[in-house]
Amino acid sequence: MKIICNKSDLMKALNTVTKAIPTNTTMPILKCVLINASSSNIKFTANDMELGIETNVNGFVSEKGIIALDAKLFSDIIRKLPESEVTISVDEKKNVTITCEKAKFNIMGLEPDDFPYLPFVEKDYKISLSQFTLKEVIRQTIFSIATNDSNKVLTGELFDIKENRLRVISLDGHRISIRNIELKDPYEDKKVIVPGKTLSEISKILSGGTEDSVDIYITENHILFEFDENIVVSRLIEGNYFQVDKMISNAYETKVTINRQDFMSCIDRATLMVKEGDNRPIILNIDDHVMDMKISSQIGSLNDTIEIEQEGKPIKIGFNPRLLLDAMRVIDDEMVDIYYMNTKSPCFIRDEAGTYNYMILPVNFVD
Amino acid sequence: MKIICNKSDLMKALNTVTKAIPTNTTMPILKCVLINASSSNIKFTANDMELGIETNVNGFVSEKGIIALDAKLFSDIIRKLPESEVTISVDEKKNVTITCEKAKFNIMGLEPDDFPYLPFVEKDYKISLSQFTLKEVIRQTIFSIATNDSNKVLTGELFDIKENRLRVISLDGHRISIRNIELKDPYEDKKVIVPGKTLSEISKILSGGTEDSVDIYITENHILFEFDENIVVSRLIEGNYFQVDKMISNAYETKVTINRQDFMSCIDRATLMVKEGDNRPIILNIDDHVMDMKISSQIGSLNDTIEIEQEGKPIKIGFNPRLLLDAMRVIDDEMVDIYYMNTKSPCFIRDEAGTYNYMILPVNFVD
Repeated sequence: MKIICNKSDLMKALNTVTKAIPTNTTMPILKCVLINASSSNIKFTANDMELGIETNVNGFVSEKGIIALDAKLFSDIIRKLPESEVTISVDEKKNVTITCEKAKFNIMGLEPDDFPYLPFVEKDYKISLSQFTLKEVIRQTIFSIATNDSNKVLTGELFDIKENRLRVISLDGHRISIRNIELKDPYEDKKVIVPGKTLSEISKILSGGTEDSVDIYITENHILFEFDENIVVSRLIEGNYFQVDKMISNAYETKVTINRQDFMSCIDRATLMVKEGDNRPIILNIDDHVMDMKISSQIGSLNDTIEIEQEGKPIKIGFNPRLLLDAMRVIDDEMVDIYYMNTKSPCFIRDEAGTYNYMILPVNFVD
Repeated sequence: MKIICNKSDLMKALNTVTKAIPTNTTMPILKCVLINASSSNIKFTANDMELGIETNVNGFVSEKGIIALDAKLFSDIIRKLPESEVTISVDEKKNVTITCEKAKFNIMGLEPDDFPYLPFVEKDYKISLSQFTLKEVIRQTIFSIATNDSNKVLTGELFDIKENRLRVISLDGHRISIRNIELKDPYEDKKVIVPGKTLSEISKILSGGTEDSVDIYITENHILFEFDENIVVSRLIEGNYFQVDKMISNAYETKVTINRQDFMSCIDRATLMVKEGDNRPIILNIDDHVMDMKISSQIGSLNDTIEIEQEGKPIKIGFNPRLLLDAMRVIDDEMVDIYYMNTKSPCFIRDEAGTYNYMILPVNFVD
């Protein structure tokens, strides 16, 4: 094999595919990038068996071939080369030579036959959306997936397609995050659970352009994202997702409209009074168009006040400030609406248009 | 006590003094910043018993007093306050109230009498230099102090003052770094060993301005740096420093003049072939105005070539590439001169003016 590429194109491709290199594995082949130049195109692939990424690399194939190379060493070498043309050649003993200007590296390649190829994904079912939308949706929901594995289903996000609407849902034991996206076309109904890791890695690769689109193909066991020069394939999580609709209500006794930035600053300060793992609530006292906030712990106490628009009854209710903060951070609106029912019921942070809905459970407190 | 300061002034003072807060200590008082408003000035102090920092804070003393506050909590609170006036008041039970706009924190202070005051330093012996020079000198020598404690003396740097010359020296088992600074005035001879930690912390506080000066006071056991609104006091390291002059020689058989950036890029690439802890050398083959470089290990091999100016005999010599890299990184010259004697003797990287001299021991190799 012999290929010639620009350093910058190699670097871009490596930055993309290495997102699928596992951090912990005892199998050296999984730590590899597969360089496939068996046709006139050059493709790089990485695959941790759950998530696989393939990208086309701009370059010239002078001699066809295929080889697997340790991803970290390969990336480090390319990164430290001058901004110039790079030649990668492989002999029959899998000795790999990487040449750039006067620098010449010799390293050992690995047997490409051992590399786990990406699963074949039937392209029967497809939806399309903009890279901007997908990236935003991930950012606005990924924070509330469960971080421990005790319920595998909760480490992923539900992608729920119904006609021309995609609903993306994540939830842990304390909150639910929902984003609704209107699609250009209607599709057949589909519900799948996409691993959180897949979504967080893909959001790093997405350009986020509003004009750039992503095609998403779904089969029974896999989801495939196709965009720019990249293909990202991931296993789906098996199992049934929670029936979120049963946990959501539009009824309320109190509606508050609050300046997001001001509220965020207050609850951010409140987090200083809570040690990690402590479930100390911030107590919101909503009355007469004012929200008084109070939190106290062995560290100390904080009192704060914000003027609000209020509709309905006064209420006094406690929340974990970190959960409020997570939701406030990802909303883009200047003013947000928060709906309360009573001290024991969750609050809902949602917009009129129904693009987002964040449910957060309250925390008991002694006054 | 009651003081009023701007958030930004508090933040600046805290960023300065917290450099002397120890990361590991079982004594809560050492984790504190002392707020001293016992006169009409406000002073913040932190002291880990080796290194102490005191800074004047812009502000108004409405009620005199003194209190110790946990540095991390205090800093976190101030950081998260709005950009506005901050009032800090303390009652007789050491309850501290920090108020800014509508936010009001209550935290507990600690007994100021338990706080270790900075040692008194006699101001008999003083030298002055610019902040720029001191910051540069530290950057250009700090990398070669010894990192383990087996010889305490080597964890510091020698400040050697002779007439109007300051020589700063650091060394570990493999190299020596020397910087010579010409002082404006002649001083009495003095040799002291300043802890590396003191120097690295102080260099973070120094503005680095060429017009801003630092006054340095030295006693038998302490060194005190006075600049801007700050006082930094540090213990000196006891003991005798190595007699570096005996290890230095100006004789050479081969002199090479090389483009620093090009050489640095080559040896940086070479470090990829060396695992941490491995003493694999890069072999430099200097002949006929060309430096050929070669390194090989179980990871792979690298060959590279640079055109050089050469004076004297050809030589083939091996070095730990990381040591060469460290020196090359801190030199500012475009072209550097390197002097070699023979395969067993150290090389010297020094400039004509004698402002710097980096000695690096070679590594044996089998060809």
